[in-house]
Amino acid sequence: MSTQLQEIAPESAQETPQALVERLARAGRAAQTKLARLPSEAREAALKLAAQSLRRAEPEILPANAIDMANGEARGLTGALLDRLRLDPARLAAMADAVAQVASLEDPVGQIIDSRSRPNGLVLERVRVPIGLIGIIYESRPNVTADAAALCVRSGNAALLRGGSEAVHSNRAIHQALVAGLVEGGVPADVVQLVPTQDREVVGAMLTAAGLVDMIVPRGGKSLVARVQADARVPVLAHLDGICHTFVHAAADPAMAQAVVLNAKMRRTGICGAMETLLIDATYPAAAALVTPLIEAGCEVRGDARAQAIDPRILPAGAEDWDTEYLDAVLSVAVVDGLDAAIAHIARHSSGHTDAILTDDAQAAARFLNEVDSAIVMHNASSQFADGGEFGLGAEIGIATGRLHARGPVALEGLTTYKWLVRGTGQVRP
Amino acid sequence: MSTQLQEIAPESAQETPQALVERLARAGRAAQTKLARLPSEAREAALKLAAQSLRRAEPEILPANAIDMANGEARGLTGALLDRLRLDPARLAAMADAVAQVASLEDPVGQIIDSRSRPNGLVLERVRVPIGLIGIIYESRPNVTADAAALCVRSGNAALLRGGSEAVHSNRAIHQALVAGLVEGGVPADVVQLVPTQDREVVGAMLTAAGLVDMIVPRGGKSLVARVQADARVPVLAHLDGICHTFVHAAADPAMAQAVVLNAKMRRTGICGAMETLLIDATYPAAAALVTPLIEAGCEVRGDARAQAIDPRILPAGAEDWDTEYLDAVLSVAVVDGLDAAIAHIARHSSGHTDAILTDDAQAAARFLNEVDSAIVMHNASSQFADGGEFGLGAEIGIATGRLHARGPVALEGLTTYKWLVRGTGQVRP
Repeated sequence: MSTQLQEIAPESAQETPQALVERLARAGRAAQTKLARLPSEAREAALKLAAQSLRRAEPEILPANAIDMANGEARGLTGALLDRLRLDPARLAAMADAVAQVASLEDPVGQIIDSRSRPNGLVLERVRVPIGLIGIIYESRPNVTADAAALCVRSGNAALLRGGSEAVHSNRAIHQALVAGLVEGGVPADVVQLVPTQDREVVGAMLTAAGLVDMIVPRGGKSLVARVQADARVPVLAHLDGICHTFVHAAADPAMAQAVVLNAKMRRTGICGAMETLLIDATYPAAAALVTPLIEAGCEVRGDARAQAIDPRILPAGAEDWDTEYLDAVLSVAVVDGLDAAIAHIARHSSGHTDAILTDDAQAAARFLNEVDSAIVMHNASSQFADGGEFGLGAEIGIATGRLHARGPVALEGLTTYKWLVRGTGQVRP
Repeated sequence: MSTQLQEIAPESAQETPQALVERLARAGRAAQTKLARLPSEAREAALKLAAQSLRRAEPEILPANAIDMANGEARGLTGALLDRLRLDPARLAAMADAVAQVASLEDPVGQIIDSRSRPNGLVLERVRVPIGLIGIIYESRPNVTADAAALCVRSGNAALLRGGSEAVHSNRAIHQALVAGLVEGGVPADVVQLVPTQDREVVGAMLTAAGLVDMIVPRGGKSLVARVQADARVPVLAHLDGICHTFVHAAADPAMAQAVVLNAKMRRTGICGAMETLLIDATYPAAAALVTPLIEAGCEVRGDARAQAIDPRILPAGAEDWDTEYLDAVLSVAVVDGLDAAIAHIARHSSGHTDAILTDDAQAAARFLNEVDSAIVMHNASSQFADGGEFGLGAEIGIATGRLHARGPVALEGLTTYKWLVRGTGQVRP
């Protein structure tokens, strides 16, 4: 551990977690005020320097990661967790490339949302401004340190990062390299701060720091997100579950439906946009051709009574299956009586993330898109496309299933708010 | 009290406040789903019928209001509170007119925020949709019952209204008339529900009904808003304080500055957009001409040492004055050394509502508009213009000083969220 890190860590018990968060948040917000006044080109250039700095810091970052990997193995982390934790030259290069890509994204700050003139001559504009200080609470993946920080800086925000204890050495090395590049580019160091202690109470202090932390983004497993949502008194941008449905309507093209359903479930089973429930219209003529390829690809299929009639290998589904995000090669299947029944099932069981209809009937598609009330509603596409990169946003800080501020994949625009500018010539209100 | 009201009121102690809120919220959300599927014209027509119904119900509403007035007088309500409570034929007509005006506002629901095509042929749109169920917690003014309900219905939302006990008879009569008109227009009655009990625990149950109530809008005094913000686990749209500053820059036109300053403070002292602190540039040549008319208009002026030198009638300001929303004919005045000092004072003491600069120096104005981080930032205009109607929004559900979702005057757009529509032709993700 470097001297610098020891210096900013709370010494003994003198500084409470609340005081630490307040100190970091105030420093971050002060730095953010300076960042927001930099021209867009300066923020872009600084992020490109940060990307270069990450590449140059391979001799520091990979050994730090090796310590985390060794500790993780000693602590008995699962293979999946170790894989998330692991960095190698290719992954580190990809992390630096991602930072450079975010640097090149269109700057939302200063964009004029709308403008209007009033009869009294007042001219009003709404203009995008940064939110302020974003708290990121995350686990395992050290690349979040770079990704989240880059998105915050590009959008003029300060980031307060709180990574997991399993990645502490990796996160510190990445943070140090990133900030060195930013500072080289004229960005104040405190714009991106890494919480210097693994004290778990600091997370609680971040979650309740209303007025200091403007928004929290949790990145990690369901238990992390659930805890953040339960305890936060600060606005949270997150999704808890991705219980995504695909409804194969009577008028779906069978070849297309077969391909999309297989992709929606099996391309990657562990992502939030993976299909978890397949709804098959009772009059759809090729139900077996949907299910058989899934089973043959190694997917466990659980169905209601009518679905079980499609294939004898379908296991019975319990009531809880319709509300379960498997994140695995498991699928629940229900046979439904037409569009209304599908929409009703989704209204009851969807987590509001992504739901899709497959059909060649334009009217049915229009009704589904209109009436299904999820962050993302798709027609004739795989739910695995639910991703900021695939949506053309360049990156994402996360996918949100709340109803306010931002929904679905959230990138730079979702990290901004707006203010009203009113320009007059001395108007007084009658 | 009508039989209908007794029927839906919780009987004895069998239904807890939480259960009552859950039942009302589920009924409201179910009705909202139907409302959202009505064409815009149907919602407009139903609101116009509601306005007519309000006009027709004068023989019921005014006597109900008379009961509240009599009770209020017996309970010793202040004259200001009684005036807020009081309805007469003109005020009732104005209330109905306001509902008809909201009916005619442009419908935000279904508006396409943006659209994009991806190289793989996917077409993405973001389209505005209602938020869902909005809880309105308010005091005194019975017109909020009609205003807030109309804004919710126009934007496709359900409203759960919880008015103050002092206006209970007025609110019930207004609610009954309003709903009768809506139902006549084909809108489900449960779209606008009035909480049928004055049990104060119901407010707490609304504030913590995450997942049932989508947003809370408090309308009332500071103690109500503070309680809502402190206790809510549901997103809140509100402002606590309107500590609005006007900075008279060295290059302000003296005649304009004198008129704007007097208007910003004295037009109406009790509204949230009223100026509470005047900042005068140390080199501004006509400081006395700003302060004298205020004092002569009956304003108590409190100043720092340098401000006190302007006029012997200026009282000394204490430290707390810079953070006080007087909502009265009282003003704090500070002399500051130029633009940077003014921006720094505002950053420290503003409540983020509305702050203004008066100057003929375009560069100073541009810096002020850019660097002051409030919901509304004005140049050469009275802060009293901070109002949805004055901004051309047609109405407002409130003014928000939070940083997420909506800031400043919030009208129909702020009562919507969006969803992503993705249209494909069978795309699977590689």
